[in-house]
Amino acid sequence: MKRNPHLSLLQPQYLFPQIQQRKREFLERNGPVDLISLGIGDTTEPIPNAVVNGMVAAAERLAQKETYTGYGAEQGQEPLRKMIAEVLYHGRVNPKAIFVSDGAKCDIGRLQLLFGPSAKIALQDPAYPVYRDGSLLQGVSNITYLPCTPENDFFPDLSLAAHCDLLYFCSPNNPTGVAATRTQLEELVAFARENQQIILFDTAYAAYIQDSAIPRSIYEIEGAEEVAIETSSFSKIAGFTGVRLGWTVVPETLKYEDGHPIHSDWNRITSTIFNGASNIAQAGGIEVLKPEGLAEVQKLIHFYRENAHLLREALQKQGISVYGGVHAPYVWAHFPDAPSWETFQYFLEKLHLITTPGSGFGSTGEGFIRLTAFNSRENIIRSCKIIANNSLSSLIL
Amino acid sequence: MKRNPHLSLLQPQYLFPQIQQRKREFLERNGPVDLISLGIGDTTEPIPNAVVNGMVAAAERLAQKETYTGYGAEQGQEPLRKMIAEVLYHGRVNPKAIFVSDGAKCDIGRLQLLFGPSAKIALQDPAYPVYRDGSLLQGVSNITYLPCTPENDFFPDLSLAAHCDLLYFCSPNNPTGVAATRTQLEELVAFARENQQIILFDTAYAAYIQDSAIPRSIYEIEGAEEVAIETSSFSKIAGFTGVRLGWTVVPETLKYEDGHPIHSDWNRITSTIFNGASNIAQAGGIEVLKPEGLAEVQKLIHFYRENAHLLREALQKQGISVYGGVHAPYVWAHFPDAPSWETFQYFLEKLHLITTPGSGFGSTGEGFIRLTAFNSRENIIRSCKIIANNSLSSLIL
Repeated sequence: MKRNPHLSLLQPQYLFPQIQQRKREFLERNGPVDLISLGIGDTTEPIPNAVVNGMVAAAERLAQKETYTGYGAEQGQEPLRKMIAEVLYHGRVNPKAIFVSDGAKCDIGRLQLLFGPSAKIALQDPAYPVYRDGSLLQGVSNITYLPCTPENDFFPDLSLAAHCDLLYFCSPNNPTGVAATRTQLEELVAFARENQQIILFDTAYAAYIQDSAIPRSIYEIEGAEEVAIETSSFSKIAGFTGVRLGWTVVPETLKYEDGHPIHSDWNRITSTIFNGASNIAQAGGIEVLKPEGLAEVQKLIHFYRENAHLLREALQKQGISVYGGVHAPYVWAHFPDAPSWETFQYFLEKLHLITTPGSGFGSTGEGFIRLTAFNSRENIIRSCKIIANNSLSSLIL
Repeated sequence: MKRNPHLSLLQPQYLFPQIQQRKREFLERNGPVDLISLGIGDTTEPIPNAVVNGMVAAAERLAQKETYTGYGAEQGQEPLRKMIAEVLYHGRVNPKAIFVSDGAKCDIGRLQLLFGPSAKIALQDPAYPVYRDGSLLQGVSNITYLPCTPENDFFPDLSLAAHCDLLYFCSPNNPTGVAATRTQLEELVAFARENQQIILFDTAYAAYIQDSAIPRSIYEIEGAEEVAIETSSFSKIAGFTGVRLGWTVVPETLKYEDGHPIHSDWNRITSTIFNGASNIAQAGGIEVLKPEGLAEVQKLIHFYRENAHLLREALQKQGISVYGGVHAPYVWAHFPDAPSWETFQYFLEKLHLITTPGSGFGSTGEGFIRLTAFNSRENIIRSCKIIANNSLSSLIL
């Protein structure tokens, strides 16, 4: 039995397990040390009561003959699809276009099946590693990287991708924390329309956008419903990282070049190799989108945004250039004089702060580290004090 | 943007949505009719209280700062992996070999990524459609079908698969309901070892085996840990079809022909395009495997087995040859004189019973229908009365 040759194109480990290993190795060498995690973007604050109560009630319904339910629709419960369409898309998309999933990461792993291994893809660089790794796993070999740097305001030169079929785009961006403006997204949609491309738009962090002028969905741009798939998640809206709930929008107006609707293929894929998100998680999602739930999760999001603000300030006071962290829970800090993994190691060993090396997100991420705002206020304040009390000068030539 | 050419190899619809459509069309033509579903294998009885209480407690922990948790290990919670290893495998497999998933269907959709599109695969015919459809989606083109019929006691002539790399095998079988004997599984493992093949063994229905002489896992067969991956599910053990929890065993002793361990690749795949099963579902899985949970789910399984027994009897009294339904929740009924979809339609229109046409599981399933035992006792008794009171003679030449 031969190994899938596509597997050898991946690094042996996914990024975050690599970071876990560095942490373990450090602790093995140094004994117990109180490390603060600003690494993986994992929520730390409890889920609002109204949402948890909804999940508790859903679990309890499963214990009663009259209210027990088994398999749900693979596409998700209709009330949840309707609420996502109404509350998050203000009716811009049809509930039928919304496919509820167990998370954006899982859907990104399946979306490439729509287009197959010969698709030419373009990625922002740096980018969430799953776009690249998931595509490589599916046998995609033609990948174009679009550098996103302070010099281009983290919006890439799209002309590099004119020959591509598929554009992965994440806004607010993971890892840079930068949200694309309306003008930039209009440029993106116009470019994709002109070149008959599909955009895979990731809005997992859209709830963090503070400025109503910045689009929270690609479908706020006219004509996007003919060129864009959007994938998103409850993880960072409501602390659902462990609960597992997300969705993908595939508009019924979206077509392959031969006119075949992409929607029916996505329906076939989800009903064939997926079986719906947990009914308990879906009940939680419904509560998130009710007025009480929305008010509660807004407080959570505000809390994490304040954390990001504190981290930005602390780094800036030390003379570090920082990006993002305003419309996103990520701060992208520039340490141009050392490789990212060295800066990561310095933060780990000297500051006892776990970050994510920028190069883990692509070669253009070299010279940066990502800090996440997902932590308690106490830990963020401690982190800021550590940053304030330690000279980072050895990292700045 | 071109369509993935692999998609055109699939039927436009997955099997069960096709059945739903037939049902809808019938109801549209005939107005409200009380149909009994013996079609899709979906659990109907409530989840035991001890298990639901565990899920409720897990949800409530997410509302408290002190007990909130976000992302878990992509491989699953360690206590659950240990309990699966101890309780269900009696220590035969290492907890590290167990990867908790959101269900066997989803894992089957990902497993083909280990071997890639050039793998030559063999399937039992009839078989669960996801083996074929999931493989076609991944670009696999070389598929050998191994007929399983009353004549060969539903155990295929393995020599047909000597040239294959990968053998999908399901026992107790979906759809035939027949469990392979120890001798047959010894033959299967010996064959795979001799031909350096990997077995993908599906034990989603193993809990229904009544006879301790029949293996519930391929790892009960000596040497299987060097040739077999096993995938399984809590769906039919504990009514978790909507909760979503399963697992896959990839032994650390399993190697590709070049000696590379398959375990590390599976770990890479699950951590890259999967993010763990819902933490609430995992808490439920832990409760299922505690003594109280096990005692409760045994009652559930016994209940469905009695349903299967009643269906078998009712059909046999009408002169129909039936298979399965002893160590499995499925009864495989032989109507050799008509195409399966015609028998299906007869059951729908004349008996108001929804079944599954055997041909939906492969061409060797032609002439059979599958009836599921997953329903209330009341509905099963009503179904049996309908079968008793209607001549099926027009279906038997």
